[in-house]
Amino acid sequence: MIPPMSEPTTKYLLSEEQIPTAWVNLMADLPGPPLPPLSPATMQPAGPEDLSAIFPMALIQQEVSTEPEIAIPEAVRDAYRLWRPTPLFRARRLERELDTPARIYYKYEGTSPAGSHKPNTAIPQAYENKQAGITKLTTETGAGQWGSSLAFACALFGLECEVFMVGSSYDQKPYRRSMIQTWGATVHRSPSNLTQAGREQASHPTGSLGIAISEAVELAVQRDDTNYSLGSVLNHVLLHQTVIGIESIAQMEMAGDEPDVIIAACGGGSNFGGIAIPFLRRVLRGEAKTRFLAVEPAACPTLTRGVYRYDYGDTAGLTPLMPMYTLGHDFVPPPVHAGGLRYHGDSPLVSALVKEGLVEARALRQNDCFAAALQFARTEGIIAAPESSHAIRGAIDEALAAREAGEERVILFNLSGHGDFDMSAYDAYLSGSLEDPEFSEADMEAALARLPETPPVG
Amino acid sequence: MIPPMSEPTTKYLLSEEQIPTAWVNLMADLPGPPLPPLSPATMQPAGPEDLSAIFPMALIQQEVSTEPEIAIPEAVRDAYRLWRPTPLFRARRLERELDTPARIYYKYEGTSPAGSHKPNTAIPQAYENKQAGITKLTTETGAGQWGSSLAFACALFGLECEVFMVGSSYDQKPYRRSMIQTWGATVHRSPSNLTQAGREQASHPTGSLGIAISEAVELAVQRDDTNYSLGSVLNHVLLHQTVIGIESIAQMEMAGDEPDVIIAACGGGSNFGGIAIPFLRRVLRGEAKTRFLAVEPAACPTLTRGVYRYDYGDTAGLTPLMPMYTLGHDFVPPPVHAGGLRYHGDSPLVSALVKEGLVEARALRQNDCFAAALQFARTEGIIAAPESSHAIRGAIDEALAAREAGEERVILFNLSGHGDFDMSAYDAYLSGSLEDPEFSEADMEAALARLPETPPVG
Repeated sequence: MIPPMSEPTTKYLLSEEQIPTAWVNLMADLPGPPLPPLSPATMQPAGPEDLSAIFPMALIQQEVSTEPEIAIPEAVRDAYRLWRPTPLFRARRLERELDTPARIYYKYEGTSPAGSHKPNTAIPQAYENKQAGITKLTTETGAGQWGSSLAFACALFGLECEVFMVGSSYDQKPYRRSMIQTWGATVHRSPSNLTQAGREQASHPTGSLGIAISEAVELAVQRDDTNYSLGSVLNHVLLHQTVIGIESIAQMEMAGDEPDVIIAACGGGSNFGGIAIPFLRRVLRGEAKTRFLAVEPAACPTLTRGVYRYDYGDTAGLTPLMPMYTLGHDFVPPPVHAGGLRYHGDSPLVSALVKEGLVEARALRQNDCFAAALQFARTEGIIAAPESSHAIRGAIDEALAAREAGEERVILFNLSGHGDFDMSAYDAYLSGSLEDPEFSEADMEAALARLPETPPVG
Repeated sequence: MIPPMSEPTTKYLLSEEQIPTAWVNLMADLPGPPLPPLSPATMQPAGPEDLSAIFPMALIQQEVSTEPEIAIPEAVRDAYRLWRPTPLFRARRLERELDTPARIYYKYEGTSPAGSHKPNTAIPQAYENKQAGITKLTTETGAGQWGSSLAFACALFGLECEVFMVGSSYDQKPYRRSMIQTWGATVHRSPSNLTQAGREQASHPTGSLGIAISEAVELAVQRDDTNYSLGSVLNHVLLHQTVIGIESIAQMEMAGDEPDVIIAACGGGSNFGGIAIPFLRRVLRGEAKTRFLAVEPAACPTLTRGVYRYDYGDTAGLTPLMPMYTLGHDFVPPPVHAGGLRYHGDSPLVSALVKEGLVEARALRQNDCFAAALQFARTEGIIAAPESSHAIRGAIDEALAAREAGEERVILFNLSGHGDFDMSAYDAYLSGSLEDPEFSEADMEAALARLPETPPVG
């Protein structure tokens, strides 16, 4: 059992005036220009015009901007006020339980109405589309974290929202689907018969994220009043998420501590990038020395086992090719519960940072992550999302290493969301029936062999 | 569709130092002493000694105290810091949608790890039992809000926790059960074969709250190291919940507004009492004129249709009899989704306030409440628990009445929890299949006819 409390809980709260006024764009501080995406039709560099059929110009400009900071529109800050600033805690009970000299801090993004960090980018995406005269957004969603966040944002800005939800999730996880509908959006089971892409995949009734993306993009391309919205991977998405790290810098200052290592889970890269980028800029400017650790599932070890090359963002090969660590765009990761981390590729920005040695990566097993999440729930009280459980595992491992070394390390991690919609996974863990699926190197090799020839990277 | 935002969201945040240091006990300000509970064995007034087999003396003292304020132990304030102070919002988007001159404020208690106001009392109950040398708490739970909150509190204070969960909920709502287990507590399907009470009810396999209470109390009575914990109804539970109203007073001062009417849902009375009591004291002291509105389900209209008399707290008739509005202790309310409001009786304190005309009561239909919750989710962003949807309906009705009257009324309501675990109810509402069950006056009359003779009240 957990010992009774002897030291106070410590929570660092900011005032509403401290909601950031500008996002941090790391492009300005990177050595040299980033590699461009490639058009899937020509394999030549894709420009802003290649994206204008599905994204508003304001977001495309953010995507390619080299300005160090980009002002956050007042209407976006206003919507952020519904849950921001988010709290940052010192995990004193967990420290005591681990008997570690490390000081562990966590930033908690689960207080948003959708329960994760995803609304940080859904809000500005909905806003910029509204400003551009768009009346409807389409998107895809797996388990529903992103689809529910975009539905929430569209409700606030008076946009219609159409979500293509992966068929198997649509059937098995009805509750995030209901959440999307509660916020007024329409949900289609993918593959649907509303699109050519969907009709062509009718023989794969369980669907996939790749098929759902194709359906959402197809609708957006066809209609002038409709755009597409993506919840991770792209530069502008990571940009929006930097509110997490900007607030964390202010809160660590309140705590009078400087993180030695910053840890976050990494699937498409938005939750990792969100907390890391503002701290990374300080490192790039020589103002701090900080380690950064991106943790990923051992079942989908993109950064630790993938290859660094150009690949498509979606399974069907319709999107531009991006320079990134990839397991091959048609590699199908085993079904771990951290659905948000089941992505064959990764953000080009995070991939480049790993390639340059600025960010470390580590792959973690599903059962080890749930063991950490359980320890965290029983000490700190919050039941984490399976994605976030990877960050908890990473932080606990660092804290145990600090104990081993007898060192006072300062650890900061991003607790990106709560696990309210993932209790069946906890149930499986508690009953000893949680799978611990293995990554298949053979499948990856086969997927990589199916890739087209592209220019070299790095 | 919702119009785009034109006025800023307004959120009133307190600092951690403003977590209340004392609970408000209304007993000191009530005219005359409260009616005593009666022993079920003798029908004579029950004293503190009748409760000491299942409650620690510190909580019994709080139960009968007439001190106007009771200091909150530092260890309790420390645990409150995990999520308190909670935010208070002005619902500007909802006001605009309703085109009302009313100003609508809501206090949001859904940011606790368990997702509702329940931990406000689970924490001090766990603390006082720990202080008294108790090692285990037992309790009952229906859908799991209270059971999960007590499991959370017990994890923080190193107590074992055993929860008897109503059989039908145990089978149909596995996720709050998993939450209870994630926090380290044991859950038994009730009726169980662990207790005499359970074995005697084996022929009622779906169970009931009354049976679960009997099982939990039986275990607590048998063991010296074990106590029982109740999540509503009793004075000390309402006392602990006054942190909601105390914070709200400070936040309404920040807003520069004075509520004309305060609204909360009322089942056992703890969420209503929590926000109302600190404001009620100001009214009793002649410092303010405020209306108070307790809203309840039309399917279980205790305050609006029940009779005011002595009745048992549980179905089996094992607990002391309390003076309250009741539908009869073995009346079984129709299965509305607001499980927390399906209680045959009500807090003696809230009942007395209704009896005295200090608090109004209103019964609301389930479908009307979900319609209000949907409108709220699409304007303010938060998806409310079914219990809290009653308060939203009440607030919207008041705002529409203000529009009708052309009056600038100030409305404050308690949004007691989020609806993450209630999406199946939203799903039913959205698909048009949500039942709107009716209260049966005949069933109530029959239940009341089965009550023993007791001294008159009022």
